[in-house]
Amino acid sequence: MLNHTICALATPQGSGAIAVIRLSGALTYPILHEVFKPKNNVVLADAKGYSIVFGTIHKDNELLDEVLISLFKAPYSYTGEDSVEISCHASPYIIQNILALLTQKGARIATPGEYTQRAYFNGKLDLSQAEAVADVIASESKAAHNLAMRQMKGGISDEINNLREQLINFASLVELELDFSEEDVEFADRTQLESLINTTLSTVNRLINSFTLGNAIKKGIPVTIVGAPNAGKSTLLNALLKENRAIVSDIAGTTRDTIEDEIVLNGVSYRFVDTAGIRETDDVIEKLGIDRTFESVKKAAIVLWLVDAQLFPTEEEYKSLELLLKEHLNSEQRLIPIANKTDKAGITMPAYASNFISISAKENIGLDALEKALEQSLEAMGYGNASVAISSTRHLDALTKTKESLDKVLEGMALDISGDLLAMDIRQALHYLGEITGAVSTDDLLGNIFSKFCIGK
Amino acid sequence: MLNHTICALATPQGSGAIAVIRLSGALTYPILHEVFKPKNNVVLADAKGYSIVFGTIHKDNELLDEVLISLFKAPYSYTGEDSVEISCHASPYIIQNILALLTQKGARIATPGEYTQRAYFNGKLDLSQAEAVADVIASESKAAHNLAMRQMKGGISDEINNLREQLINFASLVELELDFSEEDVEFADRTQLESLINTTLSTVNRLINSFTLGNAIKKGIPVTIVGAPNAGKSTLLNALLKENRAIVSDIAGTTRDTIEDEIVLNGVSYRFVDTAGIRETDDVIEKLGIDRTFESVKKAAIVLWLVDAQLFPTEEEYKSLELLLKEHLNSEQRLIPIANKTDKAGITMPAYASNFISISAKENIGLDALEKALEQSLEAMGYGNASVAISSTRHLDALTKTKESLDKVLEGMALDISGDLLAMDIRQALHYLGEITGAVSTDDLLGNIFSKFCIGK
Repeated sequence: MLNHTICALATPQGSGAIAVIRLSGALTYPILHEVFKPKNNVVLADAKGYSIVFGTIHKDNELLDEVLISLFKAPYSYTGEDSVEISCHASPYIIQNILALLTQKGARIATPGEYTQRAYFNGKLDLSQAEAVADVIASESKAAHNLAMRQMKGGISDEINNLREQLINFASLVELELDFSEEDVEFADRTQLESLINTTLSTVNRLINSFTLGNAIKKGIPVTIVGAPNAGKSTLLNALLKENRAIVSDIAGTTRDTIEDEIVLNGVSYRFVDTAGIRETDDVIEKLGIDRTFESVKKAAIVLWLVDAQLFPTEEEYKSLELLLKEHLNSEQRLIPIANKTDKAGITMPAYASNFISISAKENIGLDALEKALEQSLEAMGYGNASVAISSTRHLDALTKTKESLDKVLEGMALDISGDLLAMDIRQALHYLGEITGAVSTDDLLGNIFSKFCIGK
Repeated sequence: MLNHTICALATPQGSGAIAVIRLSGALTYPILHEVFKPKNNVVLADAKGYSIVFGTIHKDNELLDEVLISLFKAPYSYTGEDSVEISCHASPYIIQNILALLTQKGARIATPGEYTQRAYFNGKLDLSQAEAVADVIASESKAAHNLAMRQMKGGISDEINNLREQLINFASLVELELDFSEEDVEFADRTQLESLINTTLSTVNRLINSFTLGNAIKKGIPVTIVGAPNAGKSTLLNALLKENRAIVSDIAGTTRDTIEDEIVLNGVSYRFVDTAGIRETDDVIEKLGIDRTFESVKKAAIVLWLVDAQLFPTEEEYKSLELLLKEHLNSEQRLIPIANKTDKAGITMPAYASNFISISAKENIGLDALEKALEQSLEAMGYGNASVAISSTRHLDALTKTKESLDKVLEGMALDISGDLLAMDIRQALHYLGEITGAVSTDDLLGNIFSKFCIGK
C-alpha cells in the first residue's frame, strides 16, 4: 500500500484563489517530470527540498495552468516520503484535470487520511498525534484548539510512553523470574511493583476522569436551559450570540456554518441544548418541564435555570422545583439559577434567590455575570488543570481496559499469584496503552481512525 | 493604497487539510518576523525567495499552528511585492486567529481582487489578463478554460497592443502636421491611414463578432429544446447527463454544485434552457409551444426540435411548424430536428424527415450523433477559428466604442476634415482600446473590475 504514489486535493472544495494538490510517494518526481515544465531553465533533479519552482502543467499539449510547486524530499516531508505540493488556480476544471493527469501517469487518488497515515507509518507522528491532526482542523474554539494542539504536539503520548516504559521494565523483570523459576528469585521487587502500579493507576484514572471535560471541550460544553415558556430562553441565546458572534465575523473571509445554539464564550464552545418539552401549565411541577427536559438535563454539564422575575415562584415552590431538578443531576453537573427580566419595574428578588444571577436578556444586562458563572462552573469541573485531557472515546476505551488489567495485577499480587500470570496482566495493560500511541496497532484500528479524516490530509 | 500590507485567506472556505493565507506588501517580512518562529535556526532575513521555511506561529504565547511559509521577494512574486504564503491547517479557528494576528501587527484584510490588482499596478499583468484570472478560476469546461487561459496569457492584449501601436504612430504624424499647419504638409499619408483604419476596423469587427461565441463558451452555450410534452425532453437530458456526469465524478474529491441542466459535452459546456410554456393540445401550432417558448428560442444559440417518432406530424404540419420556428430564429442560430423513440416497433420516418437525427433517449441510442450535431453547430458558429474570442461585455463595450470612433475617422477623411479633428477621433479610439488592456484606466473602472473577484485573489 505504501508503494503507491498518491495524490489529492488538500485544500477545501469551493471558490477561492488557490488550490493545493498533494502528490506523495516514490514516483512523485518521475511523475512530476512528465507533467510539469519548469520555467527559467530550472532542472528539477537539481532543485532542493523546501524550494519552490514556477512552471506550467500541460495535458494533451494544452496548457492546464501555471503553477507553483513546493518540493519536499524524503524523509523531510509531512509523509516522510518524496512529496510535492502543486499550487494551482482554484478552478474545478483545473483541479480535476491535474488529478486526472497525475493518475494517468501512475499516481492514485489518496484515501481519506492517507497522508497522515503514511506520516504515522514513517514514524513522523504516533497514532494519538495523528488523531489530533483531525481535531486541530475541526477545532472552532480556543479551548478545543489548545486541547487538540497539545495532543498533536505529543502531550498525551508523552504521558502514555512514560507509563509504558516503567511497566515494560517491570514486566521484563517479572518475566526474567520465569526463566529462573526453580530458584525462586524475585528480580522484580513486589513492593516497588505495587507502588508503580498504583502510580500508574492514578495517572490512568486522572486521564479517564479528564474525558468528560475533554470531550465536552472538543464538542462544546453541553448546557441545558430549563424554565417555563416566556422565561426568555431565546432572548438570552440571541443576546449571547449577538455579543459574541461579532468577534467571529469581524474578520472578513471567515464566514462558516454555525449551529444555531453553539456559542463561543471566552474561548470555550458551549452547546446550548433545547428543552423543547416544556409546556405551559399552571401546575408548578409541569412548569419546570416534562420528561424530555430531564433527559436533556441529564446530558448537560451545566444547567441554566431561567426564572421570569415577574413570576417568581414562592419559596415553597422553589424548594420543590430545586429538589426535583437535583434528582436528575449528579455531583459533577453544575446548576446556575438565573432571574431574567429584572429590569422591569416593581421587581423584588425573594430572599431565597440571593444566589440567583440577575439579568435582563432583552436589555443586555448581567450577561457578563452569567459568562463569569459559566467559567466558574468549568473551573469547578477541573478546566484549569486540564493541561492534558483526553477527548477521544477510543482513548477512553483503551484506558478503561488498561485500568482493568492493572486492577487485576493488584488483585493478583494480593493473592500472591505466580509471576507468569502477573506478567500476562502487565502485558495486557501495556497492549492497551500501546493502542493509544499506535505502538500496538491493527489494520482494523487504523482503518477506523483514518477513514474519519478528509481526503487530502 | 499600495503602501498597505494586505492579508487574506487564498484557499476556499470549508473543510480540508491545508489552508493558505497570503501576506503581501512592504511590511511582509517585518510582520512575519514578529509572529513566526522558524525551526532549525533558519534566519528569515537570509532565506531566499522561492524557498520554504517550517516553523510555528504563536499568539499571546499560545501555539496557534505549525506552518510552512513560502517566501517571495519583490519583484519576483505574484503581486510584484514582498509576499509570503502561510500554509496552515484548514481550521476555522486557526485561520481566523492568524488573520487577526497579522492585522494586529499592521496588515489589513485584502479587498476582493486586491492581489491581482497589485499585480496589475506593478506591471505583472495588464487589465485584460487580470480579468482572465477570475475567468480561469470560474471555468468549468475545457472550452471556457482554454478561452480564459489564452486571455490570461495575453492573447487579446497582443492583438489590442498591435492595433494601438500602429494607430499611435499615425496619430503622432497627424498631430505633427498641426505644428506645421501653416505649411500645409501631410506627414501622415492619407491613403495609408485609410488602409490602416480599415485593417484595424476589420480586426475590431472580428473581435466584436467573436463575443457571442466567446460569451456562450464562458457561460455555457444556450440550447433550447422545443417539442410537445412527452416528446422525451427530460429523458434526453437525463441520458446526456448520465453519460457525461460520470466523467466528472470518476475522480474522487471533485464533487461540485451542478446546475441541473448544464452539461459538458466534449469539453464544451451547454446550458439547456427550459421551455416550460409548452401545453398539450390538438392544435398543431400550439403543439410547438407558446410565446414563452419563443422567448427562450430567441435566446438560444442552438435549438433542438424534439419530435415523438410515434406521433410524427404530416409534411404539411411539419412545414408550417418549421416556418413558425424559423420566424423566431436569426441566421446565426442553429436548428437541429430530432426524432425520439425511434426504437419503438412500427416506426417509419417520413421522407421529409431525412435530415432528422434519429435517437432513443430512453435506450441511449443515437446520442453520439446528437453530440456530433451539437459540435458541428458550434463549428458553423466559428468555434474552430475562435483562437482569440472576447467573452467580456466590458471588452465588447470598449470595442464597439472603438469601432464608432474609427468609423468617424473614415467619415472625416471622406469629408476631408482637418487634421486636428481626425487626430481627436484617433485618440478617442486609442482611449477605448487602452481601456481593454488598462493602458488607460480610472479608479471606477478598476473598482468595478476587481470587486467581482473573490477575496484572496
